[in-house]
Amino acid sequence: MRAYDIIKKKRDGGRLTKKEIAWFVGGCTSGRVPDYQIAALLMAVFLRGMDRRETSALTDAMLHSGTVLDLAGVPGFKVDKHSTGGVGDKVSLIVAPLVASAGLVVPMLAGRGLGHTGGTLDKLGSIPGFDTRLGPDRFIEILKDVGVAITGQTDDIAPADRKLYSLRDVTATVECIPLIAASIMSKKLAEGMDGLVLDVKAGSGAFMKSYDDAGALAETLVSIGRDAGKKVVAVITDMDQPLGRCIGNSLEVKEAVLALKGAGPSDIMDVTLELGARMLSLGGLEADIAKGKQKLAGLIKNGSALRKFYRMVEAQGGDTGMVKDPARLPDSKEKHGLKSSADGFVTRIDAEQAGLAAMMLGAGREKADDDVDPAAGVILARKVGDTVRKGDLLAIMHVNDRKRLKEAQGMLEAAFTVGTEPPEKRPLVYKIIE
Amino acid sequence: MRAYDIIKKKRDGGRLTKKEIAWFVGGCTSGRVPDYQIAALLMAVFLRGMDRRETSALTDAMLHSGTVLDLAGVPGFKVDKHSTGGVGDKVSLIVAPLVASAGLVVPMLAGRGLGHTGGTLDKLGSIPGFDTRLGPDRFIEILKDVGVAITGQTDDIAPADRKLYSLRDVTATVECIPLIAASIMSKKLAEGMDGLVLDVKAGSGAFMKSYDDAGALAETLVSIGRDAGKKVVAVITDMDQPLGRCIGNSLEVKEAVLALKGAGPSDIMDVTLELGARMLSLGGLEADIAKGKQKLAGLIKNGSALRKFYRMVEAQGGDTGMVKDPARLPDSKEKHGLKSSADGFVTRIDAEQAGLAAMMLGAGREKADDDVDPAAGVILARKVGDTVRKGDLLAIMHVNDRKRLKEAQGMLEAAFTVGTEPPEKRPLVYKIIE
Repeated sequence: MRAYDIIKKKRDGGRLTKKEIAWFVGGCTSGRVPDYQIAALLMAVFLRGMDRRETSALTDAMLHSGTVLDLAGVPGFKVDKHSTGGVGDKVSLIVAPLVASAGLVVPMLAGRGLGHTGGTLDKLGSIPGFDTRLGPDRFIEILKDVGVAITGQTDDIAPADRKLYSLRDVTATVECIPLIAASIMSKKLAEGMDGLVLDVKAGSGAFMKSYDDAGALAETLVSIGRDAGKKVVAVITDMDQPLGRCIGNSLEVKEAVLALKGAGPSDIMDVTLELGARMLSLGGLEADIAKGKQKLAGLIKNGSALRKFYRMVEAQGGDTGMVKDPARLPDSKEKHGLKSSADGFVTRIDAEQAGLAAMMLGAGREKADDDVDPAAGVILARKVGDTVRKGDLLAIMHVNDRKRLKEAQGMLEAAFTVGTEPPEKRPLVYKIIE
Repeated sequence: MRAYDIIKKKRDGGRLTKKEIAWFVGGCTSGRVPDYQIAALLMAVFLRGMDRRETSALTDAMLHSGTVLDLAGVPGFKVDKHSTGGVGDKVSLIVAPLVASAGLVVPMLAGRGLGHTGGTLDKLGSIPGFDTRLGPDRFIEILKDVGVAITGQTDDIAPADRKLYSLRDVTATVECIPLIAASIMSKKLAEGMDGLVLDVKAGSGAFMKSYDDAGALAETLVSIGRDAGKKVVAVITDMDQPLGRCIGNSLEVKEAVLALKGAGPSDIMDVTLELGARMLSLGGLEADIAKGKQKLAGLIKNGSALRKFYRMVEAQGGDTGMVKDPARLPDSKEKHGLKSSADGFVTRIDAEQAGLAAMMLGAGREKADDDVDPAAGVILARKVGDTVRKGDLLAIMHVNDRKRLKEAQGMLEAAFTVGTEPPEKRPLVYKIIE
C-alpha cells in the first residue's frame, strides 16, 4: 500500500477501505507516513467527506493505535457521559457521582479546557490534592470500590488522534464532522465502557454553532458507537448562553457541590437529570426516562449523590473538606462587578464571549500549554429572560491577575444584550438521537 | 498574515489575493511555511481550483522566488517554444536553430526526461562534450553570437516551483491545471523572452490525455503569458502515437539532424513548421502562417538551419563531427527486432507504452535521479496507418543492457495494435489558441 494512492482515491471522491484507513492511521502513529501526506489526506477528507463505514473504520484505527482499557474485571454496567464542550458546563461533576449512586459504574476519561470552553479536569484540579493522572490500575481499583472515577487520558490512549489533531489544528481541517466524530469516539471507546450518553451542544458557545450541524455530528457519533458494539444515545442541548451561573474552575466545583446538595440552578438540573436518566436507561436500571429522572432526584435529595462525590474525591486524593465546605475552595483576591447600563430584559448572553472573558481572567487556556488560575472566573448575576434595571449587577468577575481585566470586562459587556422585550424562550433539550 | 487563514480561505472556495499568494509562496521558498501547510493548501487548490487572476499571481510569485534572466542586452526579438512533453518529440532540436536562422533569437531553457517522456537536455547530452549547464553570462554570449542556445535551468530559477513540485509529486496534487500552468510558465518566464509558442500535447503519450484537458491547459498557459506582458500562442498537437520514428536520445538527435538536412519524417516536419511559423509571426517576421512555413522550408533547403545547429553545438562545446556524420553518435551494442504476428494495418501505437518501453531499455528515467543511456531506444519501423504483413518488422530496440529487455519488449508489443481495417486519420494539429 502507498499513502499516495490512498490520498488520490479520497481526492477523487472514492471510498477508502477499512484496510487502507488502518494502514494510513498506523503510518501516522509510527511516523511511516510523513506529515505532508497526512495533511493532504486531511484536506481531501475535509472536502470530499467520509461515509459511515469509513468514519467507523477511522475511529477503530485511531482507537487501536493505543491502549484500550479492559474493564471486564469491574462488575456492573459501565456507562459514561461526554459533552462536546461548552461554557459553564459542570454537568460531568454532578451526573457522574449521581449515576454511580444509582448503581451503575461511571469510568470517565475527561479533558482539559481550551479557548472559551472549560474542561472537567481543570475544574477538579481546583480541589487541592485531587489526582487527575490516575494510572489504569488505580482507576480500575476506584471504579470497583466507589463506582466512579474521573481522570485524564494517558499518553497511550489513541496516540493517532493526538497526531492527527495537531495537524488538523494548523491545516484548517478541524471543522469536519467525520474527523471530529472519530476523534471524540476513539478516545471515549478507549475507556472500555458498555454505554455512552453524548451531550452534543448547539449554539454560540458550542463547537457546532447551528442546530443542523450539531444534529449531523450527533448522528455520526451515535452510528460510530453502534458500529463499535456499544449502547449509545445523543442528546442535543442548548449552549447559546452559559450553563448555570458560574464560569471558572473552583466556581464551577462550588456550583456542582451545590447541585449535589439539591440547590443547583434549574438549567443545570434539567440537563443533568436528562443525561442521567438516559444513562440509567442504557444501563437497564430504568427504561422510563421520566421515572429515571425522579429516581435521580431522590438520590440527590437523600444525600446519596453527594456522598458518592465525597467518596470519589477522597479516593482520588482530594481535600474532602472542600466538599463539606465549598467556601474553602480557592477564591480570587478581587471581585469586579459589571453593571447594566439600561433597564429591560437580558435577551442574550453570548456563551462564547462569556467564556472568552473568563479565559482572559485566567480561568481558561488560550494555548494548549497555558496554565489556568483555579480561582479566576465569572459569576452571572442575571441569565437570559431576567429583568434588569440600570445599575443592577449583570455579572461579577473573580480576578487574581488584572493584566487582561479591561479586555475581559469589554468582552463580558459585549456578551450581554439588554432589550426592552422579553426574549423568546429557547428549549434546553432539543432532540434525542438514539 | 497566517498560512492557516490562507488555507482556510481556499478550503472554503475563496479567491486568494495577489498578496496572500506572494506571502505563501515566499514562505515555501524560505521555509517559513512548513511542508504540511503547503500540502494542505495544494490539496485545497486541487479541489477548489484557482481563477485566472490567482493563477497569474501564483506564477508571478514562483517566477520571482528566483532569478529572472535579463536579455535586454541581446538585440532582436527573443522567442521560445515549449512542449508539455511527449514521446519522440525532438522538435526543439530542429525548430530552435531553424527559427534562429530566420533571424529571431531563441533562448531555450530545457528540461530532462521523466517516466515515458523524453527531455531535450538528455537528447543533447548524447552529443559528446555538449554543455547543458551554461551559466547566464555564457548563455547570453552565445545568444548574441549564434542567436540560439539550449541549456538547463539553474537552481536559482524558480526555486518555489521545485519545492511545490516535490510536494505535489507525493501528495497526489500534480494533475491540476492552475498548478501545472504556473509551474510551466514560472520557469519559462524566467528566460526573459518576448514571445513564446506552446506546444500542448494531447493523447496517450501526453500529460493531458484528453483534448478537452489539453485545451483548458492551453487557455490557462496563454492567459498567464498575456498577464505577464508576453506574446504567447498555444498549439494543441497530437501525441497519441510517438512523433517521428525514433525514441531515445542519440536516435532522436540523428533524426533531428536528418530533419535539418531536409529528410525528416512528415509528422515531425508538419509540427516543426507549424510551431516555427507561429514563432516567426510572434516575432513580426512573417504574419502569414503559410508564408512563414514556406520561408522556414527554404531555410532548411538552403542549409541555413543545419548551419545554425552546427554553430550552436560548436558554441556549447559539443563534438561537431557528430553533426556532419550522425552515424558517429553513440550506438547500442545490440539490436532486437519486434515482428508483427498478423497481417493488416497498424491502427494504434500507444505513445505512453512505447515511451515506457524505451525508458526500460535505459533511454529514460523511472526516478528523477536515474542515469540515462544515450544509445538506448526504439526505432519504429511502422507508424499508424502503415500496412504490415505477419513477420514484418514493427520496431527495432536499441539495447546495451538486457536487464529489462523482456519487460520492454512486452510493453512495446502491447503498444502496437494491428487490425484488419485502416484506422481513421487523426489530425496532427488540433487547434490554435491565441
